[in-house]
Amino acid sequence: MEARMTGRDGGADIGPIGNSPVVILVRPQMAENIGTTARAMANGGLFHLRLVAPRDGWPLERAWRAASGADRILEAATVHETVDDAVADLHHVFATCPRPRHIVKTVLTARGGAAELRQMSSRGLRTGLMFGPERAGLDNEDMARADALIRYPLNPAFMSLNLAQAVMIMAYEWWMAEDATPPRALMTNETHVATKGELDNFMRNLIGQLDECGFLRNQQKRAGMVRNLRHFFTRGEVTEQELRTLHGVVTELARGRKARATGPANS
Amino acid sequence: MEARMTGRDGGADIGPIGNSPVVILVRPQMAENIGTTARAMANGGLFHLRLVAPRDGWPLERAWRAASGADRILEAATVHETVDDAVADLHHVFATCPRPRHIVKTVLTARGGAAELRQMSSRGLRTGLMFGPERAGLDNEDMARADALIRYPLNPAFMSLNLAQAVMIMAYEWWMAEDATPPRALMTNETHVATKGELDNFMRNLIGQLDECGFLRNQQKRAGMVRNLRHFFTRGEVTEQELRTLHGVVTELARGRKARATGPANS
Repeated sequence: MEARMTGRDGGADIGPIGNSPVVILVRPQMAENIGTTARAMANGGLFHLRLVAPRDGWPLERAWRAASGADRILEAATVHETVDDAVADLHHVFATCPRPRHIVKTVLTARGGAAELRQMSSRGLRTGLMFGPERAGLDNEDMARADALIRYPLNPAFMSLNLAQAVMIMAYEWWMAEDATPPRALMTNETHVATKGELDNFMRNLIGQLDECGFLRNQQKRAGMVRNLRHFFTRGEVTEQELRTLHGVVTELARGRKARATGPANS
Repeated sequence: MEARMTGRDGGADIGPIGNSPVVILVRPQMAENIGTTARAMANGGLFHLRLVAPRDGWPLERAWRAASGADRILEAATVHETVDDAVADLHHVFATCPRPRHIVKTVLTARGGAAELRQMSSRGLRTGLMFGPERAGLDNEDMARADALIRYPLNPAFMSLNLAQAVMIMAYEWWMAEDATPPRALMTNETHVATKGELDNFMRNLIGQLDECGFLRNQQKRAGMVRNLRHFFTRGEVTEQELRTLHGVVTELARGRKARATGPANS
């Protein structure tokens, strides 16, 4: 690769993560799209980029400007004259194709494709993901070199997908295929989810103050009202810190009431 | 909304699909990003766009140029002075936030958030997805108006995500949450997957020709060689059309051999 060009600072400190798929841009046209592709790859933990016959040659300064710091991916990118050359050392290649026609080929969803890539990767196989040029997409000869096609389930009324968006979805699914983040969790930071005992302390304070101020004076309705308040406070997780704040809220509201009731200033 | 401006042709024929979430861009800066957001929304079947205090006002011609035909989303977009105003008629709002700090909040993955949005949508609730401005992201006041945060699992070494890329991932997950495409399928187009009987016809032709040309003359190895060929031809699905082609390949290769064996030109 060429040495640094104007304005390049090396970007973020990123490198290959494990045995990750090669992204192959076939006859890409716009330098910006090569740059935003590198950015999307970095988001999803991909690193290896190959360019087949880029229309405007390589390197292209505008790609670096569009990469938002994914410079190392661009620095390490290689250029190839043909698809055959770009895939020669790979064991499995998938080709993204929005509208395959008149061919007999295995078609995977992005998620299905990512799961298979992870499996092949863990077997030590080298894999690749081919993306076609901006408007035309991959041609029939390109697709005949792929083991399977990947077709994203997306709104059939609007399939026009930007190249880097297409790369983003595969990079995202590649990352997600190994991700174990729980789909829902309470982020508590410095505090912790309250125990039932901590919640009960608060409920006792609240009910005691409500008894005192007369809010629960209707003895027939009292049990139901207390239960409903308890339902509300157990709807979502509450933290120990929030309970302390709520304790304060109840106590201060009650104190204010008492001060008003007894203080001379309110007479 | 203003009447059409130069260069607008109305774009693709898209409209709302069911009860889909509102996308709320809070203080967006770049017109291009509003346009590419609309494009990403269209890809994922979203339609309703609200802009809170867009930096350069609204409408912006460059948004239309970047939308690649998702014009109707931009035409229908509404502008709001505050987040409170933009979310006032919604029942649930999620806020995307890459790095929440020092707050106690439920955090969802993009996939988990999309699943919950689908559930709320099917209950008839109106939902919204907030995205912050390009660099700073949502501030603490914005986030306090959301029911939960959505945080994408992505490469922690490179979290810089373009605004439209962030919208794309949520729009994609929204679409995927209802999608039933099989993760892997053979696209056969005009032909069909071969039955075992059709495959067996081909195997008989192949083995017959191989017996005739002497390839299987070693009787000790014959059964194993035939079995291995059968293993190969049953590795992936084969179509009836491909079997016809393979029949032709075998027959023509054999005919060529016979012609060479008997023809005077080969003497």
